[in-house]
Amino acid sequence: MVTNSIVFERLLLGLGSRSYPIYIGYDILSRLGELCPNLSGKATVIVSNQNVAKHFLPVIENALRKSNAQTFSIILPDGEKEKKLSNIDFIATQMLEKGLNRSAVILALGGGVIGDLSGFAASVYLRGIDFIQIPTTLLSQVDSSVGGKTGVNHRLGKNMIGTFYQPKSVIIDLQTLETLPDKEFTSGVSEIIKYGCIEDGVFFEWIEKNCERLKKRSTESLAHAIKKSCEIKRQIVEEDEKEAGKRALLNFGHTFGHAIENGLGYGEWLHGEAISVGMVMASKLSCDQGYISNSGVERVTDLLKRFELPVIPPAFSADLFLDLMKKDKKNNDNKLNYILLESIGRAFMKGFEAKEIANFLKKCQI
Amino acid sequence: MVTNSIVFERLLLGLGSRSYPIYIGYDILSRLGELCPNLSGKATVIVSNQNVAKHFLPVIENALRKSNAQTFSIILPDGEKEKKLSNIDFIATQMLEKGLNRSAVILALGGGVIGDLSGFAASVYLRGIDFIQIPTTLLSQVDSSVGGKTGVNHRLGKNMIGTFYQPKSVIIDLQTLETLPDKEFTSGVSEIIKYGCIEDGVFFEWIEKNCERLKKRSTESLAHAIKKSCEIKRQIVEEDEKEAGKRALLNFGHTFGHAIENGLGYGEWLHGEAISVGMVMASKLSCDQGYISNSGVERVTDLLKRFELPVIPPAFSADLFLDLMKKDKKNNDNKLNYILLESIGRAFMKGFEAKEIANFLKKCQI
Repeated sequence: MVTNSIVFERLLLGLGSRSYPIYIGYDILSRLGELCPNLSGKATVIVSNQNVAKHFLPVIENALRKSNAQTFSIILPDGEKEKKLSNIDFIATQMLEKGLNRSAVILALGGGVIGDLSGFAASVYLRGIDFIQIPTTLLSQVDSSVGGKTGVNHRLGKNMIGTFYQPKSVIIDLQTLETLPDKEFTSGVSEIIKYGCIEDGVFFEWIEKNCERLKKRSTESLAHAIKKSCEIKRQIVEEDEKEAGKRALLNFGHTFGHAIENGLGYGEWLHGEAISVGMVMASKLSCDQGYISNSGVERVTDLLKRFELPVIPPAFSADLFLDLMKKDKKNNDNKLNYILLESIGRAFMKGFEAKEIANFLKKCQI
Repeated sequence: MVTNSIVFERLLLGLGSRSYPIYIGYDILSRLGELCPNLSGKATVIVSNQNVAKHFLPVIENALRKSNAQTFSIILPDGEKEKKLSNIDFIATQMLEKGLNRSAVILALGGGVIGDLSGFAASVYLRGIDFIQIPTTLLSQVDSSVGGKTGVNHRLGKNMIGTFYQPKSVIIDLQTLETLPDKEFTSGVSEIIKYGCIEDGVFFEWIEKNCERLKKRSTESLAHAIKKSCEIKRQIVEEDEKEAGKRALLNFGHTFGHAIENGLGYGEWLHGEAISVGMVMASKLSCDQGYISNSGVERVTDLLKRFELPVIPPAFSADLFLDLMKKDKKNNDNKLNYILLESIGRAFMKGFEAKEIANFLKKCQI
């Protein structure tokens, strides 16, 4: 059988005994057993959603069969609403009914919803079993699959219940992007642009130059963009796994963005779309505070626009926006915390009084 | 105001950046602010049950007020049935409605049910906040409050969903034992005897000699027994936090014991009662395998009897017993794992085929 399988990159996220490899390649799901030799002979539970399972479950089941691994699958409906605590019970029930013990391994095959939910399930099943991230959306490949944040939503906020729990490996297969709808693809680009903004001005410039190739989903350009994104995230997570400091920078655009998602109802806008507007707003706040220049704000806004990402917030009142942002996990001591840009490629966190943000929102005519 | 407050011991459980002190004393809840200076000015959530709250909530609220801590309380009904996943959602909901962020601290005021449930809630609320164990039963003081096992039950088994998550301190106040019913007190003694069996023959002998004083709840004897128990547990947890090896020894008597609890329905027998019978059975299995002598089995059995702990299993068939034990978290690769005694004070884990255990149960006329 002819195969186009190529491993482009193998990054190592270093966290002592909890270190793990991140593989980036094309058609590498078929080589899962080779990439994850520890799965040999194990009981594996593939958690996925209907849409992704249709395309990739057979490939993975076949690869695992070659490793003499026993496979079970738990297929959930699509959508953010599945990221709920009762699904942790559902997954645990399925696994307990099969008598699976601590040596079982969960494979999260899907986007961020599946990854966050399955990772959380793995972190609490029998007080923690191994899991592997197999992200199948651009957004999850460059963001949620790396770094060990797991969780479910609560009606009072997103990701309010969860754990820090690292996977045993992350398998990023660019082939999975071929079936991804445009809107979801673009939503992932938003997080890629974020990495440039907060940590790497040269990478930001590379995205500006390679915008058209990325939009065409050139494998080579995507492999580079994903690698750079994972490298930046890896380095930040290595430095600050539990978000005591630097990791908060990854939330650039997210305070505004989460408020938008929450205010509209999750699922109305895609995460990356909300973050796109959030980054524009955070850039404007940075400029308003005398950090990044007006032309810097324009550069960020223009790049997002070129990918057809939204840059104008929904018509919320300033009061509603503020109320929604007061729930952010980064806040402390009555301060609202935002990630600001000093320049493109350099970010920092700053605390504000609610009144200051209210004034800013009014100035923006929100 | 005259106070009888005394701190007898301060042990330190050493796990690097996650190390924490264990205080053992009398009337020390009133000095909570002094023992936990980090609570000063914080938002604290006291999770307790109706019975314990009635006795000790005001003392703690008063102590926290002196530290300028803001206090909230979540009072659950009594009983093992409260150790369920939906209560994690309940606690999170209460906390989110109050707008509590990552700097909030949970105080678990109660026995093992409250400690395990609150610890789990703390480990997953906003992906983990600080918590303090204030165990108010002998069982939780010597066992579940130390070592960071948290969790809830599932209809298919006890503690099936949970985390390893260490508290920031453990406050053991012997005054809380004064209101403890006899049956619950004795149930705690069962775990104290376990420590002698698995790790310290001299301590086992001390319990034999001090049986009457312990039964009378002499403060001095209790302080010693609790200190020794916590020291042994501390040392084992320091060596093997996540139960990859030595920590399994703490499950001496628990494979049989959990099967009894599960088979009768949780709550029919107290945990320590089931473990008492479990230790007798595990001692007999050790003897049957040529390790501990017959007189050793008798010594264990006699000591448990002197505390009026049960030593005869309920009338389960061997098949039922086996089926129940097959669900144990320690099992792997189709082996049933048991903690056996080589002598009083030395334990080890051994795997068995189901058939071997079936034969043993029949020999015991079960």
